[in-house]
Formats: sequence, C-alpha cells, structure tokens
Amino acid sequence: MLYRIFPIFVGMSEYKERMSKSNITDLKTVRLSEDADSVVLLDQTQLPEKEVYLSLSNAEDIWDAIYKLKVRGAPAIGVAAAYGIYVCSKQIGAAGFDDFYQEFKRIKDYLASSRPTAVNLVAALNRMEKVVLDNRQEDIPALVRLLHDESVAIREEDAAACRRIGENCLALLKPGMGLLTHCNAGHLAVSEYGTALAPVYLGQERGYNFRVFADETRPLLQGARLTAYELQRSGVDVTLICDNMASSVMQKGWVQAVIVGCDRVAMNGDVANKIGTSGVAILARHYGIPFYVLGPTSTIDKQCPDGKSIVIEERAPEEVSEMWYAHRMAPRDVKIFNPAFDVTPHELITAIITEKGVAYPPFTDSLSD
Amino acid sequence: MLYRIFPIFVGMSEYKERMSKSNITDLKTVRLSEDADSVVLLDQTQLPEKEVYLSLSNAEDIWDAIYKLKVRGAPAIGVAAAYGIYVCSKQIGAAGFDDFYQEFKRIKDYLASSRPTAVNLVAALNRMEKVVLDNRQEDIPALVRLLHDESVAIREEDAAACRRIGENCLALLKPGMGLLTHCNAGHLAVSEYGTALAPVYLGQERGYNFRVFADETRPLLQGARLTAYELQRSGVDVTLICDNMASSVMQKGWVQAVIVGCDRVAMNGDVANKIGTSGVAILARHYGIPFYVLGPTSTIDKQCPDGKSIVIEERAPEEVSEMWYAHRMAPRDVKIFNPAFDVTPHELITAIITEKGVAYPPFTDSLSD
Repeated sequence: MLYRIFPIFVGMSEYKERMSKSNITDLKTVRLSEDADSVVLLDQTQLPEKEVYLSLSNAEDIWDAIYKLKVRGAPAIGVAAAYGIYVCSKQIGAAGFDDFYQEFKRIKDYLASSRPTAVNLVAALNRMEKVVLDNRQEDIPALVRLLHDESVAIREEDAAACRRIGENCLALLKPGMGLLTHCNAGHLAVSEYGTALAPVYLGQERGYNFRVFADETRPLLQGARLTAYELQRSGVDVTLICDNMASSVMQKGWVQAVIVGCDRVAMNGDVANKIGTSGVAILARHYGIPFYVLGPTSTIDKQCPDGKSIVIEERAPEEVSEMWYAHRMAPRDVKIFNPAFDVTPHELITAIITEKGVAYPPFTDSLSD
Repeated sequence: MLYRIFPIFVGMSEYKERMSKSNITDLKTVRLSEDADSVVLLDQTQLPEKEVYLSLSNAEDIWDAIYKLKVRGAPAIGVAAAYGIYVCSKQIGAAGFDDFYQEFKRIKDYLASSRPTAVNLVAALNRMEKVVLDNRQEDIPALVRLLHDESVAIREEDAAACRRIGENCLALLKPGMGLLTHCNAGHLAVSEYGTALAPVYLGQERGYNFRVFADETRPLLQGARLTAYELQRSGVDVTLICDNMASSVMQKGWVQAVIVGCDRVAMNGDVANKIGTSGVAILARHYGIPFYVLGPTSTIDKQCPDGKSIVIEERAPEEVSEMWYAHRMAPRDVKIFNPAFDVTPHELITAIITEKGVAYPPFTDSLSD
C-alpha cells in the first residue's frame, strides 16, 4: 500500500473536546432513538429552512427516506441502513433462525434497492447480514443484540475514519487556500466531520482560514442547502455558486484545490460521485488545480475493476423540471436526462484520500494492497 | 476576412414561407405595437407556463424589462432598446433640436445602463443616436420617423443575419448529430431563427434529425424555460439536462458539436457569453468535440482587444438562493457569487460563425478584416 500514514493520532477525548467547540455536533444526521426502537434522521430535504427530525421504525419508511434523500451521503446512508435493519430485526416475530434469516434477508434486499450507486449502503447491509450468518447458533434476542452492536460499530468506525481522512488531506493543504467542493460530503453526509469537508473543519479549528466555494449541485441543491448551510453554521468562509460558475472562480485564481467525496471507488481509481463531479475534475485539470477525492476505505469496491462496471442511478425528471414539486421550470413533457452520479476517470484524479492515507496514481497499485 | 461566404442566398419570400411552416413564428419576442406607441415584449420570465405579452411605453418600464430579463438574448435586447428609444422619443416634448437631443441622450444612457455586458444593447442605441446626430437639420417629427425606420431596420437586419448564420453553421454539421447548447440563443433571444439555434431550425426543415441537449442554465434557467420550450414547440428532439450533466452526455458520446451564442466577441476571439459557457468549452475540448460560437457581426466589439477588457455583470444573489423569489434554496445571508457571464478564451473555440461566414483561428486575423 502506497498510503502515507499520517503520523499524529488524536485520541478520542481530544476529538470530542474539539467537536464540542464546533456548533455542528448538535446536528445529528442519523442516530438511534433512546429506546433503540427507531432510526432518527435529520430530514435533509427540509434544510436549510427547517431542522426537522424524523423517527422511522419500519422498512418502508426507511426505504423512502433513503430514496427521497431525506438522508443522503454515502456513509450516512450506510449508517441509516444498518440502524434501520437492526430496528426492523427487533420486530421480526420468528421462532427459529431460518424464519428469522428469511425475513432479515427480505428486508435487507429491499433496503439495498433504495439507491443502487452508493457502495456503503450494500456494504453496511452485508456486514449486518454477516453478523446474522456468523451467529446462527445464538437465539433471536442475542442475534438482535449483536445487530445493535454492529450498527453502532459501523457508525463509530465511520466517525473515526472521517477524522483521519481530514488529517490526511489537511497535510496537503496550506492556510488561506481557496477550496472548491461539489455536493455535500460534510457533517450531514457522514458522521461528525464528514469526508470532503473534514479538512475544512480541522483547518477551521487550526486557523487555516480556508475560503470554500460550494457548487450548489443541481438538481437537488445539496451544495446550496447542505454544504453552504453546515459551513456557514460553523463559521467557515463559504461562497455559494451555481455549478456552471466553477470555471469562472477557477479562472479568477480563487481555487487552489478541489475536494469532493465519493459514492464508489473502482479498483483502478475511477470514482462515482454526485453528477457533475467529472466536469469539475476536467475543469480542475484544465486550470492546473489538484483534484482530491476523499472517502473511507469502505467506499472502495474491491468487486469493481473500473468505472464502466458502476451502475448509475437515473432519477425522476421532476427533480430537474420542478423545484420541490412547487414551481415548474421546464415545459411539460419535455425529455429530461437525470443521472444522479457520474464517473470521474482515474486519470483526472490527483489523489484518493482515505482514513489510511493518501493514494496516488497508479491507483491499481495504491488501492489494491 | 477569412470568412467563407455561404453560396446560397435564400430570398425573403422563401424565408417567410418556410417560417410559416414552423410554429415558432407565432411567438413574437419583440415588436412594435400597431400604433407604434409601445414596445410589445413576450415576457420570458413567465415562460414556459404562460405566454404573456407586455406593452411598454416609458423608459423605466423598458429598463426594468431588460434588467429583469423579461426580454433577454443579446440581439433581442438590442432590438428592444432600439424600439424603446424610438417610442420614448415620440414623447419628447421638445421645441428644438438641442432640447430633443439632450433628452434623447439622457434616455439613451439610462437604457444602456440596464445590462453592461451585451454589446448589442449599446450598439443599437449608438445607431439610433447616430440617426439623430446625422439629421440635426430635420424637424422633430421627421427625426422621430427616421428613428422608427432605423429601429425597424435593426430588427430586419437581425432576422436576415440569423438565417445566414444558420446556413453557415449547418454546412459544418451532419444529419443525426447530437448538439449541445447552453442558455438560449434561439428564436426567443433574437428574431426568427435565433443565432445558436438557427442551424437546428434549418436542419429541422431539411430532415437532419438533430438531437439537441439543452443545458438548463442556472441561475435563471433560460435553457429549461426557453430553449427546451421553443425547440419542443417546434418538434425538435430536445433533452433537458442540468448544467453539471454536460460532462456525462459528452462522455457517453451523445454530443458531436456544441453550439452557443455570444454577448460580446473581442477582437482576439475571446467570447463573453452566459455564465457557464467557458466550462462547456473546456469539457468540449477535453472530449474532442468542436465548440462553435454563433452570432451576428454586430456582436463583435472592435473596441475590445480581448476578454480581459469585458465588464462582467454581477447580479443579485437571490437569483441563486431563491427560485423566482418563491422558495428559498440556500441558507439566509450566505455569501453568493453570481456573475451573469463568463469569458471563453479564444483557444477553446473551434470557430466563430456569423452571417458573413465562418471565422477560424487565429481570430486576430479572421475577425479583423
């Protein structure tokens, strides 16, 4: 592995103390309710105007929340699905293992169908399934307890990974830099610091005074509603732009690095991420700006040799033609192409930064060890 | 001049006959009322849902219509300003030339301030002023008649130029091609066939079966509201995409040429056009797709040596943060950068196509003769 391991490990207590200074921690993207009977989600479709928490306790509602992007961001979807299948498992009224597993598997396949591109969704559900299959000798209540512990572990590993991703990226950045990001791979997408925004939050604590440009990220405006929101809430200098203004701010010399998250990384370094990411990468290459992809190693799909094998979800045309189904912005019945993601080819990527370090090209080597 | 003059000139009667077969002609973007006392505009901010015509007879209303993009598109703004200053001139209650000219000049400077980037606005107003200055021996009613004739001439020259721009571009295209366009440089932006969309309409009449991808063009969605609308209305195969999806459709091999309009062309070939155009040009270069800029020679600014001298209008942040002031999509008070245009450097442009022919690099030569 060509990763460069960041030398300083910051203990959990210092981590928590730092987070307490930030005002992003009071936004809890995904958590279990106190009685652990439901998944509590911050409804991201209602941001930035309203902070509404949803309490979900059945598979249909959880599927719907993921599909409708009430919870979104690859890692957050994984955590929501893990909590979700745990909550649903508690309700399975099965006498024996086979009945239990059959119902568990049905719920798992159903939840996995909510969004096809993000690898974390299936990866988290696979981890939960493995707990069931590895413990078939246990009784049902014990299995359910193990599922609880696994879902919590997924969430905690995620939070710890984000911190290290931030440290690994921050080592590549300098104070005062202008950073451009696309979509939302921040606190709201993940746990605690987020992935792409983790170096921004760490830099903020350390007086780096980054200036962040947030692409609004059509069609669902995660950049405007979420990234601009969480950065502004944390006192970061953020400027919102439309996606098509990225070339202008780069041309003006305002951007020294691009930082984006990822939904799935192929073994050759091709990266599936929010639609528009490949365009930003092409602009960055044109203007000679480094293009960094940030994500946990759980986003690397060892089954996926390259971007061509990644299924790209296509979503409803109304996301483009209507704003929140409130105001029609395009003619009726016009054809619309609405892919949710695109694939950025590895040759446009300067480095892929995970909790383990910084992978440089050739990614076939640096990602495979 | 390195222009290649397209050999076939189509007479006005054949032109009108062809237009009558198209259903775009019943949309009159800008015209004079029958009594010539007011400018009648199709309110483009209400499209695609409503076709509302505004009748404007004072300078404030005309300024406001241009500023608020009720009429937009560089050539259409020029025509609206020419008709507008004619209509206002009729109302000047001056006894002598000096009083008339002083008031004319005041209205002219006022209308010119409505949008700083499009060259056609000032160019049309300068032409109108020249009529006044060249005919100071005439009495006021005669001057007003000359202003009427000049404004009509500006409109007619514009319509004739569009047709020839379309022919000149069509000669570079092949049937069945996929074309991508940004913003709206069609019928609604200009007269009759538009500029960038002129080859599409001509191709449509001749069975070229183009497949057009229309960037929605944030923030004001001229691509969604206007381009998709007028192409769909004319039976052209059009697919609407968000701006950040252009890279995806190019990556899929769906686009064989990019066709865009222009608001101002510098003498070195740098082109100011709707924000996002430079990004599309960079994508086209990356994917090896020709990038054509279409516009009348009136858009070439002989006073402008290069893109650095072009003033870029910055507009209200609410255009980005709120959709038609109806639904807030970004946090309150977040910083927003909202340039209306960008400059595409000449090295990214395959050719600049005007009514006179096709200009290839080096543009310093091909545009200056």
